[in-house]
Amino acid sequence: MQELLVVKIGGNIIDDEKQLNSFLSDFAAITTPKILVHGGGKLATQLSEQLGIKTNMVNGRRITDMETLRVVTMTYAGWINKSIVAKLQSLQCNAIGLSGADAQLIPAVKRPVIDIDYGFVGDISEDTVNTSFASMLLNNNITPVIAPISYSNNGELLNVNADTVASVIAIALSKTFKTTLLFGFEKAGVLKDVNDNNSVIHEINTQNAEALKADGSISAGMLPKIDNAFNALIKGVNQVYIAHASFIKPIAENKKGYGTRITC
Amino acid sequence: MQELLVVKIGGNIIDDEKQLNSFLSDFAAITTPKILVHGGGKLATQLSEQLGIKTNMVNGRRITDMETLRVVTMTYAGWINKSIVAKLQSLQCNAIGLSGADAQLIPAVKRPVIDIDYGFVGDISEDTVNTSFASMLLNNNITPVIAPISYSNNGELLNVNADTVASVIAIALSKTFKTTLLFGFEKAGVLKDVNDNNSVIHEINTQNAEALKADGSISAGMLPKIDNAFNALIKGVNQVYIAHASFIKPIAENKKGYGTRITC
Repeated sequence: MQELLVVKIGGNIIDDEKQLNSFLSDFAAITTPKILVHGGGKLATQLSEQLGIKTNMVNGRRITDMETLRVVTMTYAGWINKSIVAKLQSLQCNAIGLSGADAQLIPAVKRPVIDIDYGFVGDISEDTVNTSFASMLLNNNITPVIAPISYSNNGELLNVNADTVASVIAIALSKTFKTTLLFGFEKAGVLKDVNDNNSVIHEINTQNAEALKADGSISAGMLPKIDNAFNALIKGVNQVYIAHASFIKPIAENKKGYGTRITC
Repeated sequence: MQELLVVKIGGNIIDDEKQLNSFLSDFAAITTPKILVHGGGKLATQLSEQLGIKTNMVNGRRITDMETLRVVTMTYAGWINKSIVAKLQSLQCNAIGLSGADAQLIPAVKRPVIDIDYGFVGDISEDTVNTSFASMLLNNNITPVIAPISYSNNGELLNVNADTVASVIAIALSKTFKTTLLFGFEKAGVLKDVNDNNSVIHEINTQNAEALKADGSISAGMLPKIDNAFNALIKGVNQVYIAHASFIKPIAENKKGYGTRITC
């Protein structure tokens, strides 16, 4: 089975031009088939503020109204996505920028209103990923760069979670590729002490996860990442890492000791 | 040779939701391979105004500084492109939204500064279109929807002219497809009297073009379209029309009397 590397990079990497350029150089140099999923960074929030669009929070969660949908589509699928593609082209990586709507790559279902109407927010599943299209690109040495925007079957664009996009596409392609999923961010890994980059927990598994949650090492923000990681492993992804984006090369080369490896 | 329809729609169609939806229904129903190229419409200008960015136009071309590049990339390659893709998906047309940077579809060269510095503006050529990628999509029943944004080989995004994008891609693909190019807009065709939709000039050829330019029937705004059209025909495109976007069906069916046909 051929190897595939699926990398998600978060907002703090995207917002830091130097770190982003450095990451893209490393990413472009990976010779196995690869996919990049990016989040949004501060640009969407900045643009919303400039346009006087209010952030609507209900029970601590952001609501995507039509104005916000437009801003996130413009920033994620427009500027950030195409900027990354152009940079990768200059690094001899033949990238293609995609949303989940393009070529039916990742169809979504608008989140049903139960207690809260989240607006234009979508839920996605590995079962409906267009794996034949993704494989066609990868087999032609074309590297997908995916923005976390998808669509419903009645033609609406929907905001989706970038970690989930990475997880879902890694799972779907793990039937045809030996897949490594890397959640890349600005810290060395999951940290025992969030302020100490030397306190990396090198392995999180189903045995130690509960204790790490209980003692606070796995904080609120990290919880959905860990859950996504376990879910990916259970459903066929070969390896999952949470690590600094700059560790992409040693992780792709299966070197030990970089970031946090999640295992079952 | 298989037929291919390349349609460009202009800003006035994009800005009118009813006309756009109607056009997209017609476009989705075309059963031959097809490509849609879209311009920008008022959204970029509106967004620039909201953000306090001045729009500088010289000779009908936008001067694209970095702020403007961000705005046009966000609106053209982001919101407009992905909105059209999502709508086409709901109409059972499997669309893929692309810029010229994606999969090296349409590489550009940054316009050299001679008298005017156009900023981040690119010039494109049929010689460098990635026809094998475009053909792969078309042969897999995937419909490209192309935003007029491209890239230079040093990783910059560049603003390109949408009419030229349509022309260049139609020429490049005319080696493998029998290609019809339709410049679709909000008028019935090239008009003798710009205010009278019944004054359509049904054919413009190299014989009558000069006289029509001299008597003002071909106005300033129409000149580059006509030049693009002649250029496309000379370089292998089978048919070129300038017509109301709603004439797409009869033109695709080779019915006579719709819009202006350009011939050599």
